[in-house]
Amino acid sequence: MKPLEGVRVLDFTRVLAGPFSTKILADFGAEVIKIEKSGLGDDTRSFGPFQNGLSGYFVFLNSGKKSVELNLKDEKSIQLIKQLVKDVDVVVENFRPGVMKKFGLDYMTLKKEKEDLIYASISGFGQSGVWHQKPAYDLIAQAIGGIMSINGYEDTPPTRVGSSLGDTSAGLYLTIGILTALFHRSRTGEGQQIDVAMADTIYSLLESNIMRYTVDGETPHRIGNRHPISAPLDTYKAKNGYLAIAIANDALFNKFAQVMNREDLIEDSRFYTDFERAFNQKALKLEIENWLKNYSKEQAALILDNEGIPCAEIYNIKEISESNYIKERNMLVQVDQQQYGEFTIPGNPIKLSSLKDKNNNVTRAPALGEHTEELMDQYMNQMVEGGRES
Amino acid sequence: MKPLEGVRVLDFTRVLAGPFSTKILADFGAEVIKIEKSGLGDDTRSFGPFQNGLSGYFVFLNSGKKSVELNLKDEKSIQLIKQLVKDVDVVVENFRPGVMKKFGLDYMTLKKEKEDLIYASISGFGQSGVWHQKPAYDLIAQAIGGIMSINGYEDTPPTRVGSSLGDTSAGLYLTIGILTALFHRSRTGEGQQIDVAMADTIYSLLESNIMRYTVDGETPHRIGNRHPISAPLDTYKAKNGYLAIAIANDALFNKFAQVMNREDLIEDSRFYTDFERAFNQKALKLEIENWLKNYSKEQAALILDNEGIPCAEIYNIKEISESNYIKERNMLVQVDQQQYGEFTIPGNPIKLSSLKDKNNNVTRAPALGEHTEELMDQYMNQMVEGGRES
Repeated sequence: MKPLEGVRVLDFTRVLAGPFSTKILADFGAEVIKIEKSGLGDDTRSFGPFQNGLSGYFVFLNSGKKSVELNLKDEKSIQLIKQLVKDVDVVVENFRPGVMKKFGLDYMTLKKEKEDLIYASISGFGQSGVWHQKPAYDLIAQAIGGIMSINGYEDTPPTRVGSSLGDTSAGLYLTIGILTALFHRSRTGEGQQIDVAMADTIYSLLESNIMRYTVDGETPHRIGNRHPISAPLDTYKAKNGYLAIAIANDALFNKFAQVMNREDLIEDSRFYTDFERAFNQKALKLEIENWLKNYSKEQAALILDNEGIPCAEIYNIKEISESNYIKERNMLVQVDQQQYGEFTIPGNPIKLSSLKDKNNNVTRAPALGEHTEELMDQYMNQMVEGGRES
Repeated sequence: MKPLEGVRVLDFTRVLAGPFSTKILADFGAEVIKIEKSGLGDDTRSFGPFQNGLSGYFVFLNSGKKSVELNLKDEKSIQLIKQLVKDVDVVVENFRPGVMKKFGLDYMTLKKEKEDLIYASISGFGQSGVWHQKPAYDLIAQAIGGIMSINGYEDTPPTRVGSSLGDTSAGLYLTIGILTALFHRSRTGEGQQIDVAMADTIYSLLESNIMRYTVDGETPHRIGNRHPISAPLDTYKAKNGYLAIAIANDALFNKFAQVMNREDLIEDSRFYTDFERAFNQKALKLEIENWLKNYSKEQAALILDNEGIPCAEIYNIKEISESNYIKERNMLVQVDQQQYGEFTIPGNPIKLSSLKDKNNNVTRAPALGEHTEELMDQYMNQMVEGGRES
């Protein structure tokens, strides 16, 4: 039995944040029934990159789900959904607050169909309050959530995190909320509502930077790649690119100085302790890059690795994707999208011993409306029967 | 009943990734018993910022947990833990792979004490494989995981995300794994092992950038704050700082042009469609900043907000922390650390309707060893009795 086998999720989410969450549920065996707009489907079906006309963006976010095409402005569709809700455990949506209510599919309405329903929403800024109608673009959530103010170098403008962290972090937190609610329901029989806002999840990822403000009144700013209180812990320029080096204690620093043939640095009062090295990190960086200019990043990484000095090359997406590491961890898996060919999509980073298959239980994404008929047959009949009985 | 009430977590984690995960479990009502190194405790007890000598870093990550001081190299402590394990649901640890085995506390050993144990580990690069002994600094995980290669501007070096995303993302994914395993156990009676690697979780957050590589063979690079296929969707310079504007369709763009008194842009063939605007985004940016130079970012945000143009000021940590939004969402909460005074720490971003108290169920962090005696009394007695019986 897969961990979430038998859990039924009715998924109204579109684009990134919501589908990112329900994709994790699908990977663990939940039955995720994705409701898609008649004729068009999820917006991401028209986002690139395409392989034989099928969107890779859509496939990676929706593999393992079912697709049902419905027009939410059509009364019959709403009646069908209300029938279906009686048999589902979780409803997930990421419309702008108020839209599900306009459809007649808000929590209070659906709760009448199923008392112990779990109803999970992602929005930019919460289901109510000052900014709840603000649009939920990732850039907007990152701008308001504070992370752009501490991402980047001293001399660069505020910097958006280079992937859609507002969406993905909201997806992860929502998944935690849904699983917590499922566990709660398994013990109490009670459903509940979950409200996750992208701006809140970005704010949560600021971690100790928030404490520096609330305790010391300090406003942390951008400091590039270096560490605020340790050195050398930064990226350093080698002959052909950058290398990350992470040293936070004296013993390792002494070893590092020896590797560089610079025992004099050990005796240098500017670099005696981690505290002094952090204070004089600019001068220390010059010394390190003076050594690194003789080596490629690959050579330097090899030398330091051999001596047990924590370091890493900085991989681009091709390099990490082609690494033995990613292969070994099954972090890229293949799904067979039939006439569109095989797609290579990210694997599940949560390795459960109860789910040991190499493909991480990942299966292909559905065609638009692939499961409409199956569901229609079942629930339309129930509706007719329900009608006859009453 | 709180959602995770009665769930007992034995928490060997230190510093950030692990404590970030078990803190979420504690917020939802789990009993988290934090095992701390005798005399010293979690490293973060000595990290700033300090208030009256108590670490704010420690408090925010460990509020709501219990603290038990033990020396894991002491045989009596190990025996005590084995007794305790019989009564816990989840063990969590983030030592370097192999360390728990050296202590005699690996999964296979503890499973003998409790057959259905859930055993959850965070490491830099997984419990086995090519890089499993590589140290798990956040910088190292970010460097290898690929995100630094797409974070920052075209002309800046690879850029570390400005908060410890390697740690926090691993903490979030591990929490999802633990909750999935708890649900699985509630239905099957089976425990399991969970292996989450920081490099994998960073890789997972690359989202569609991975698809651009696997489908098109493209290696995405840094592009600053702009959107790869829509414009104007970027940050723009106003008189006193930057503003985020997010427009991805023609109707909104036309409105925006009117607001700027630049109806000519609507007729400009370079800006006809989203596709053309993205292609000519540099020229478009000049036009927008030419308008913005007459306004402060606050003034411009007000004008655009009023017209329904998606935009946002870019808040620093002080600005977002002091906003009405954060207050309204209870994203900062107070905990009373007794003689150290009140601490203001981040609230829980997952708003569950079953947990409606204003403080998000967050309580204070423990003193080092505050719960040692309570536990010793209970389990030492059991060990003696166990000894007598056999």
